[in-house]
Amino acid sequence: MAVGLTPPSALLPIAGLRLGTAKAGIRRADRRDLVLIECALGTEVAATFTQNRFCAAPVIIAREHLAAARPRALLINTGFANAGTGSEGIADAKACCASAAQALGVSTEGVLPFSTGVIGERIPVAKLQAAIPAAVSALTETGWLDAAQGIMTTDTVAKGRSCQVEIDGNTVTLTGIIKGAGMICPNMATLLAFVGTDANIAGPALQAALRTAVAVSLNRITVDGDTSTNDACVLLATGRAGNTRIVVTNSEAYATFAEALTALLRTLAEAVIRDAEGATKFMTIDVRAATSEADALAVAYTVAHSPLVKTAFFASDPNWGRILAAIGRAPIAALVLERVNVYLDEVCIVRNGARAADYTEAKGVAVMARPEITVGIELGAGNRSARVWTSDLSYDYVRINAEYRS
Amino acid sequence: MAVGLTPPSALLPIAGLRLGTAKAGIRRADRRDLVLIECALGTEVAATFTQNRFCAAPVIIAREHLAAARPRALLINTGFANAGTGSEGIADAKACCASAAQALGVSTEGVLPFSTGVIGERIPVAKLQAAIPAAVSALTETGWLDAAQGIMTTDTVAKGRSCQVEIDGNTVTLTGIIKGAGMICPNMATLLAFVGTDANIAGPALQAALRTAVAVSLNRITVDGDTSTNDACVLLATGRAGNTRIVVTNSEAYATFAEALTALLRTLAEAVIRDAEGATKFMTIDVRAATSEADALAVAYTVAHSPLVKTAFFASDPNWGRILAAIGRAPIAALVLERVNVYLDEVCIVRNGARAADYTEAKGVAVMARPEITVGIELGAGNRSARVWTSDLSYDYVRINAEYRS
Repeated sequence: MAVGLTPPSALLPIAGLRLGTAKAGIRRADRRDLVLIECALGTEVAATFTQNRFCAAPVIIAREHLAAARPRALLINTGFANAGTGSEGIADAKACCASAAQALGVSTEGVLPFSTGVIGERIPVAKLQAAIPAAVSALTETGWLDAAQGIMTTDTVAKGRSCQVEIDGNTVTLTGIIKGAGMICPNMATLLAFVGTDANIAGPALQAALRTAVAVSLNRITVDGDTSTNDACVLLATGRAGNTRIVVTNSEAYATFAEALTALLRTLAEAVIRDAEGATKFMTIDVRAATSEADALAVAYTVAHSPLVKTAFFASDPNWGRILAAIGRAPIAALVLERVNVYLDEVCIVRNGARAADYTEAKGVAVMARPEITVGIELGAGNRSARVWTSDLSYDYVRINAEYRS
Repeated sequence: MAVGLTPPSALLPIAGLRLGTAKAGIRRADRRDLVLIECALGTEVAATFTQNRFCAAPVIIAREHLAAARPRALLINTGFANAGTGSEGIADAKACCASAAQALGVSTEGVLPFSTGVIGERIPVAKLQAAIPAAVSALTETGWLDAAQGIMTTDTVAKGRSCQVEIDGNTVTLTGIIKGAGMICPNMATLLAFVGTDANIAGPALQAALRTAVAVSLNRITVDGDTSTNDACVLLATGRAGNTRIVVTNSEAYATFAEALTALLRTLAEAVIRDAEGATKFMTIDVRAATSEADALAVAYTVAHSPLVKTAFFASDPNWGRILAAIGRAPIAALVLERVNVYLDEVCIVRNGARAADYTEAKGVAVMARPEITVGIELGAGNRSARVWTSDLSYDYVRINAEYRS
């Protein structure tokens, strides 16, 4: 079902990080549903979390533990999200961290918990705890691919990516894994994404690089406008690459690292949309010539969230009137209809606010048959732009979300 | 498919208003697709229109004609919306008005045009003009039911309602018809709704009553969040009821009239949701104890627009975590999780931000089996409230909107 996406054949190990998975039987039997990521002493960490006010218990505990100690391990489960579970959910998350900490010989605050799955039901703590020894035994630096599979929920394809850049003559490696599929509209935060690197980089610079990269990658995708309660993105830097420690953000080394991280996260973000629930189309909404980036984003998201635009793309129907209608209701201060142009890839469908004179239905049908389409929107109001990625709305989106709990 | 909705068996005539329909073959053969409403000399008119910046040509012309002259007729077509059609669309709308004006012996500015259907394609002016004589011949005071059928697009049931109130010992009648189904999220405006009354009421008071009524009826419904380019609501008052002319808005007679109008429009608005595209559930989102009405509305619409909430209702699945997640991402300034309660009808599912202690899955399943459900949300932040009505997201919504043009 995923649009132009195959699982990674291999992911590069990161010196200082080991990953192990286990089948805890949390919601379904015989499925990898528990992932442990152990990081070596001295690993720097940066993280971003969901801005949904109903954030899940693991998000609350992960924030607390990050403030209290330097992380030594991440404990991730699928099946249940441990969100909307009140004080019991908090206690459940802590109990799981304590068990993992004991098995690894680290402090409880050194373990960050992450959960994804059904909201509003407690996680089966005993089952998680029982599976931790198996995950610990499985720890290996080559465990990234198994971990990418272990964090999947309604994802159909395991998603991960590695890249390498040279800094000070040293090869720096970055490897990331991600899961998504539905309830995807990260808001100044992300879904579940874990990235490791052997770069030698100080904590503040690492956090700056993550913030910058997330802003133009994970925070630019939407499947259904539903911001998750459990979004989290964690970046671990083990410092083993041998490069001179990156401390300031105005250095060439920082720029090289941040650029590589941004490219990696953008690929991972795109992978989430390619494998969005029920997706048959990968859509880029590219808004240009806006007064501000905020305006460009508002127009892009209004189009990306429109159920009528999304069903038209599912039908491969060049019903550009629905795009026009969505632009027309976007919450921006000023919009001059007569200046708006709209393109489907290279085909101009609307010029100066009306159907383009040289547009033909045949051109529209041809471009809509493609699995990957860019909707270009020129507002004619300024010189700012923004780009978001989204998927179409299909029968399968409804089926997956109508059947998800049954 | 409509939820708890049957077509009206009869609609009361309004002295001074005559309605005629015809089959113009605009987009499909053998279908009533042209409606003419003629009003007697001296009829007062009030109207509201879409706030979508890409408003359709007929909306632009209707506004112009309203400013220039007192309306003598409304000309309504389905099939094509005449939106995004530029200056040609404007000329098309004017040409149709001119033909109707000639047939009725009134000025072109005395005719208001309304269109609904596919966006971005021109209306077949010659076909419309050719059918106008048939619509004129069919004009009758008892034509409301035929007109209700004539304005339908993806509606499955003709929608209309009559009511009577006593003012100064005189019986005042109101009759309204409406069409909706999709691209429904009126924003300080409405979809296509036409209401007639024989009340004797001055123009400014009539407009005030319409504005008040629309704010709590047509402006409180959403199917898909997609505000149409063609929304319009017109209220015609012929003054034949014999009551003393209503001029000021602080009179008892005005209050009686405005209340009856509000109740009528609310019933019509509910009918649109009951017959929304693919609807299997009629959902009321009732937000209470908010700091402001704006906050209450923001939360209500966030829940009403959530694809995940809507698919859960389609599945009759008490997946209340999705409601919680939607509340948590609503764009309001402050939200204290620990004060939020959520109800499905009489069943409390969330208390103080977490699953209610006495909630059971069996209770949730029982309430979700109902075709009409109220989602009650208490924010615990103030004493303001707001209510919106919406439908679920089903396979049929996707089918209808994927197939609409084919």
